[in-house]
Amino acid sequence: MHAPAPEPVTLSRRLQHLIDHKTKPLGSLGRLESLALQLGLIQGREQVELVQPQMVVFAGDHGLAARGVSAFPSDVTWQMVENFLAGGAAVSVLARQHGLALTVVDAGVAKDIAPRDGLQIRKIASGTADASQGPAMTPAQCQAALSAGAEVVRSLPGNAVLLGEMGIGNTSSAALIMSRLLGLPLSQCVGRGTGLDDDGLQRKLAVLMQALEANEAATEPLAVLAAFGGFEVAMLCGAVLEAATQNRLIVVDGFIVTSAVLVAQALQPGVLDRCVFSHQSDESGHARLLSHLGAQPLLHLGLRLGEGSGAALAWPLIVSAAHILNDMASFESAGVSGQER
Amino acid sequence: MHAPAPEPVTLSRRLQHLIDHKTKPLGSLGRLESLALQLGLIQGREQVELVQPQMVVFAGDHGLAARGVSAFPSDVTWQMVENFLAGGAAVSVLARQHGLALTVVDAGVAKDIAPRDGLQIRKIASGTADASQGPAMTPAQCQAALSAGAEVVRSLPGNAVLLGEMGIGNTSSAALIMSRLLGLPLSQCVGRGTGLDDDGLQRKLAVLMQALEANEAATEPLAVLAAFGGFEVAMLCGAVLEAATQNRLIVVDGFIVTSAVLVAQALQPGVLDRCVFSHQSDESGHARLLSHLGAQPLLHLGLRLGEGSGAALAWPLIVSAAHILNDMASFESAGVSGQER
Repeated sequence: MHAPAPEPVTLSRRLQHLIDHKTKPLGSLGRLESLALQLGLIQGREQVELVQPQMVVFAGDHGLAARGVSAFPSDVTWQMVENFLAGGAAVSVLARQHGLALTVVDAGVAKDIAPRDGLQIRKIASGTADASQGPAMTPAQCQAALSAGAEVVRSLPGNAVLLGEMGIGNTSSAALIMSRLLGLPLSQCVGRGTGLDDDGLQRKLAVLMQALEANEAATEPLAVLAAFGGFEVAMLCGAVLEAATQNRLIVVDGFIVTSAVLVAQALQPGVLDRCVFSHQSDESGHARLLSHLGAQPLLHLGLRLGEGSGAALAWPLIVSAAHILNDMASFESAGVSGQER
Repeated sequence: MHAPAPEPVTLSRRLQHLIDHKTKPLGSLGRLESLALQLGLIQGREQVELVQPQMVVFAGDHGLAARGVSAFPSDVTWQMVENFLAGGAAVSVLARQHGLALTVVDAGVAKDIAPRDGLQIRKIASGTADASQGPAMTPAQCQAALSAGAEVVRSLPGNAVLLGEMGIGNTSSAALIMSRLLGLPLSQCVGRGTGLDDDGLQRKLAVLMQALEANEAATEPLAVLAAFGGFEVAMLCGAVLEAATQNRLIVVDGFIVTSAVLVAQALQPGVLDRCVFSHQSDESGHARLLSHLGAQPLLHLGLRLGEGSGAALAWPLIVSAAHILNDMASFESAGVSGQER
């Protein structure tokens, strides 16, 4: 009679063993330990490598913005795209700090942006339609945006993407997607965005209620995405799907990128395994959305800027998790006594 | 009649104005904005510079460790010092990642450590006395440790120090100092350290209760420090005092370094203004101690390792705050429209 085959030592167990035998009390590196495990599982090995990380910021305008759902005018979308490219925005400064290549994608900005290095022009249209009157985009536009997002990822090297966005009015898109896909009342999904006061928040709620009613038939993930937009959110969704298929690490920024992940996860199981949620923002729906996704965000800094700024800020923690897995000594290799039992 | 003199524009107001006019919604960079303000105030200017940051890890042994207050044997103190110097410990790996010079200080390790680069031997004695039987150190030893900590800072270049520690048994010192100086019951100050089980925690509590009784007379900050030790905590306290006097930025690691800051703040007002609290650890007293100090820790990652690992992990956020202050465009300079009112 043969002895039973030895229990297969899975990669997950091998990684956990490695982490547990590093020179530190068991579990004492907290969240970084689960992050190190996740990196190993994504890359399918015990020594991980983060190669040519790409920060990609998708920008688009929103028909809904004309209804006063934001504290800023729509012009700020293209103005901030110029600022990203000129190097003066938060995400530009942070990407420089961490050696992240920065690509800005015109997914559907109302104004034409002059071509230049670091800009990909993949404009679907000059802003979405007003979602309070019907779908923000046609099914064909939505499909084109998803494909464009995937193409952007394919056009870039490396094994990690950090995803950000810019679009005046896009916390409205995110709140609408969240409300419809999770079946939650708007009040649990809508926040002050870039800084609405109490009156502004009431106005935003009323407009978004109208948008939900005008798109009552949209319940499937793709229909919800098309109904509430924007082009940058749909392109983010396409980018997430492609990056997950390619087993790239996906570093998720704030509320809007998380809403794109929500759609992507509904379309393709396993997406979440590749996602690191960089931070929990101050936008009021974000904590609930993260909790629905079972996400454990790395940072809690009260950010509510978007752009990918939170993803950039969290990047060095991800690099640290890789170094801990790759470079820390074990109790055995360092000759350190273990825990007394 | 003269018009009233214009209200003096203080540095604090100038810095806040700069931060508020960066291309981002007001307050949207959250905790990084107060950090940028603090950096400007410490350095007394609107463009800040972080020069040659120094990670300093103070190590010492504790008489109390023989009483079973830790999950690890005392030998781990010197073994980890060797590991720091060999580059295999968490703090070594993280300091390398961030370009932090690493200095290890033998403040009172039981075993002699062979001299080498990156090690400062400032041993007060081969471990403290058992605090459950009386003071851990004499007043002269305490004074010598404070002076040595100050000398270590004076011996190092740069305008920022990141402070860490190693010493089997030193969460006991921190808990005792906290309990006595804040007048809190031990149960609110004592935690599992590097990983005590329930029985171990009960044993630790009983031993620390004895230490409080054996040092009933110690109520003034210096007497409390001498009573409960350790040499590394006293040296940390001296380092904090000197760094504050020199207006260096002080990046505080976890529970033990925070307890040294508690003593330093009691001795010299203004110390806290120079401190950035890198993280809130999982050691149970730390949250309460931070809250007492009015500290807003940058990271919440469930760390409980010490060494300075949390300070190293938070370092890039501090660099980011500096870049945001120095390098981000303003609405005016970038031609971006402001918030609608």
